Amino acid sequence: MKCDILITDILLLPEPGTGVPEADSFIAIAAGRIQATGPMRELAKAGARARTTIDGCGMLAMPGLVNGHCHAAMTLFRGLADDLDLATWLNEHIFPAEARHVSPEMVYRCSLLAAAEMLLSGTTCVADGYFFETEAARAFADAGMRAIAAQGIVDFPAPGVPDPAGNLEAAAAFLDAWSGRDPRILPALFAHAPYTCSATTLRRAKALASERGVPLFIHVAETANEAAMIAEPLADSPIRHLDALGILDEATVLVHCVWTDDQDLDILARRGARVVSCPRSNLKLASGIADLTAMGRRAIPVALGTDGAASNNGLDLFGEMDTCAKIQKIRAMDPVAMPAREVLAMATHGHGLPGLPGGLGRLAPGCPADLVLVDIEQPHLQPFHGPDLLVYAATGGDVRTVIVDGRIVVRDRRLLTMDLEAVMAGVRAMRVRDDTATGPAGTNNA
Amino acid sequence: MKCDILITDILLLPEPGTGVPEADSFIAIAAGRIQATGPMRELAKAGARARTTIDGCGMLAMPGLVNGHCHAAMTLFRGLADDLDLATWLNEHIFPAEARHVSPEMVYRCSLLAAAEMLLSGTTCVADGYFFETEAARAFADAGMRAIAAQGIVDFPAPGVPDPAGNLEAAAAFLDAWSGRDPRILPALFAHAPYTCSATTLRRAKALASERGVPLFIHVAETANEAAMIAEPLADSPIRHLDALGILDEATVLVHCVWTDDQDLDILARRGARVVSCPRSNLKLASGIADLTAMGRRAIPVALGTDGAASNNGLDLFGEMDTCAKIQKIRAMDPVAMPAREVLAMATHGHGLPGLPGGLGRLAPGCPADLVLVDIEQPHLQPFHGPDLLVYAATGGDVRTVIVDGRIVVRDRRLLTMDLEAVMAGVRAMRVRDDTATGPAGTNNA
Repeated sequence: MKCDILITDILLLPEPGTGVPEADSFIAIAAGRIQATGPMRELAKAGARARTTIDGCGMLAMPGLVNGHCHAAMTLFRGLADDLDLATWLNEHIFPAEARHVSPEMVYRCSLLAAAEMLLSGTTCVADGYFFETEAARAFADAGMRAIAAQGIVDFPAPGVPDPAGNLEAAAAFLDAWSGRDPRILPALFAHAPYTCSATTLRRAKALASERGVPLFIHVAETANEAAMIAEPLADSPIRHLDALGILDEATVLVHCVWTDDQDLDILARRGARVVSCPRSNLKLASGIADLTAMGRRAIPVALGTDGAASNNGLDLFGEMDTCAKIQKIRAMDPVAMPAREVLAMATHGHGLPGLPGGLGRLAPGCPADLVLVDIEQPHLQPFHGPDLLVYAATGGDVRTVIVDGRIVVRDRRLLTMDLEAVMAGVRAMRVRDDTATGPAGTNNA
Repeated sequence: MKCDILITDILLLPEPGTGVPEADSFIAIAAGRIQATGPMRELAKAGARARTTIDGCGMLAMPGLVNGHCHAAMTLFRGLADDLDLATWLNEHIFPAEARHVSPEMVYRCSLLAAAEMLLSGTTCVADGYFFETEAARAFADAGMRAIAAQGIVDFPAPGVPDPAGNLEAAAAFLDAWSGRDPRILPALFAHAPYTCSATTLRRAKALASERGVPLFIHVAETANEAAMIAEPLADSPIRHLDALGILDEATVLVHCVWTDDQDLDILARRGARVVSCPRSNLKLASGIADLTAMGRRAIPVALGTDGAASNNGLDLFGEMDTCAKIQKIRAMDPVAMPAREVLAMATHGHGLPGLPGGLGRLAPGCPADLVLVDIEQPHLQPFHGPDLLVYAATGGDVRTVIVDGRIVVRDRRLLTMDLEAVMAGVRAMRVRDDTATGPAGTNNA
């Protein structure tokens, strides 16, 4: 057997949620895909020649994590203003900081920082949404990440789109620029929310997305009072408003969905629309806890997202999985709700995201070679009684090696695709703290 | 200035919750205490001779974290059985596993593993409660940790105490053995719960604790139906039952307190009793969310705990802080509730724990030299806008160096007080999985 990369002596988790880890396994990777997996004794019989061999001893191999919702460039505002109500946070801190700092160069640099953080914590694929998204897409491409990059659309002046009348045109130009440009980058659209986009804008955004065959993302039902914030509501819930606009289908991704009723969820199931849940962001802003159990009963596809670093404040999906499983148990007051295997499947398959390659989330022959090696020989992961520990005890810091599309991007915790020190220094040099309002007295001023 | 350890060029967080980090600082440590701190330029003027110098460049110094509740030896059962209701988990998995595996040697070895995990994730002090606690105390002492070690008391046969009639005698023998033996180890008592200890046992345990001047820990008000589980209740709530027994005072520590009403909390405030909250364990077992806001209003001292690794499944207080702050916001539906600075103060001061040395939780002259250096030059902590990121973005894996009582126990992530590989191998060799019931089908069998 000839291959590009051969991983030996690994504990192999072929498919989170259904599989049982197999000790003493090998993984062969060729042309960006898993070529073969099996026990080491079979490898010894067959023989193998690989350009690169990775000793997997003491490590577990699992599919890469998929971050279903992020605003990567917002790493610049990480921890800038915490523990505030949404209006104060947005109006007094985030919007002024964005007005001052968001530029094409800022989006590129800060998205690169986000990509570094995500890759080093085991996330191989992200669905991002922001402005100047072409720069974010370039950052993900340069970092060697898989991404859905979605250009923001909103009915007020935005970075790079000073006149909202041009928001669809800017979005179309973005799709033109990235269509077919990089096999790992899928361009898409991100309409901000039903209360910041008019009915006309939302209909036109969906028409553009459908015409180009790309997904449309939208924040919806994040807070309890969102229905009241919609200027001309066509129905009495944000999701029914979107349905009345006719924009819900399998290529529409609804981010948050914290405040939904049975009727909303029945609509989502009927339309085949998808959901991304961002539990830590929803907790930190005190928005609420999405009812993932009710969505699961209706087989609504749900992905897990971190949201941006201004509201989380990190992009570590291991922590997000832990929080997700635990708060679903509390929501249901049932410790059996959202078992570890379910949240692990949710975070690796990217079910809630359209347009990703088939086989993502499985380490089986023919599937994309997006995978992560986790160092399980550490005191907090011993004894390693099973993959539940990936949810309830591991963190992104336990990731040692990351492969995306058959390419090694992190090896032994070193990021191979960028000069990380230079990226961090470049972001620090923007000195956002000096230019904007400070946090609560005495708590947040480094 | 002459000192034992000199840390240079550090970002210094003198006191979480009130202080602002000071860049370019130094810390001098002598005889187990902070001798001096200040800006580097003052050090240059004064000059200093140190036996050991640590370059703190790129790192933040903060007081060590205090774990208010743990069953350290239960690392052996980490992830053995997850996502189950409390009765199934206890009766079908944990109790059988304990019956088979708990021995003095197991307690020593597995407590050593827990100490390794805690030290490597920045916890310098733990309040532990289990059986064969003398072995746990020995493990903490050998690991160089500060600890309150509490011998378990329960009215049924327990490891090392086959006849419950001897439970107080065993506890007294433990206090005898550890009284004054090690300045970092404070022996104490741990009565399991009001539903597993009779009124007589609880009264006798408190009398013994008071006589010896040591704290009494007890699990209480963990689940909604606990009152109904008490055999001969003296009142209609578990806390009022304990109060009717006369065992609540400043040396009594109530662990969990999830299900409390105003009257309960008024009693705690009046008696000066202390609380330890274990948010992740309470979520995972779907017990509930303690009302820390209401406790804060009454100035009830609260510490943060991880509980044991069988129910959490890790002992990382950074993750515990993040979850604690976020779920308090959801409980209150207010993003201002439990700000990062408050949870950081809670996790470093150990307010909920009696008997700890004064000054713990502060890096100021004269205070105990229990401190942690966190590597903040990592992508998930950049830009470092302030100490909120220690709660909302850092994990235990970011800890580089740990000093307890003026002694370096972890340096550059290497644990200096034990052979970690040998400790992990020893615990793995107990092969607990092979001997006990397996977890849910297909999810948890390594």
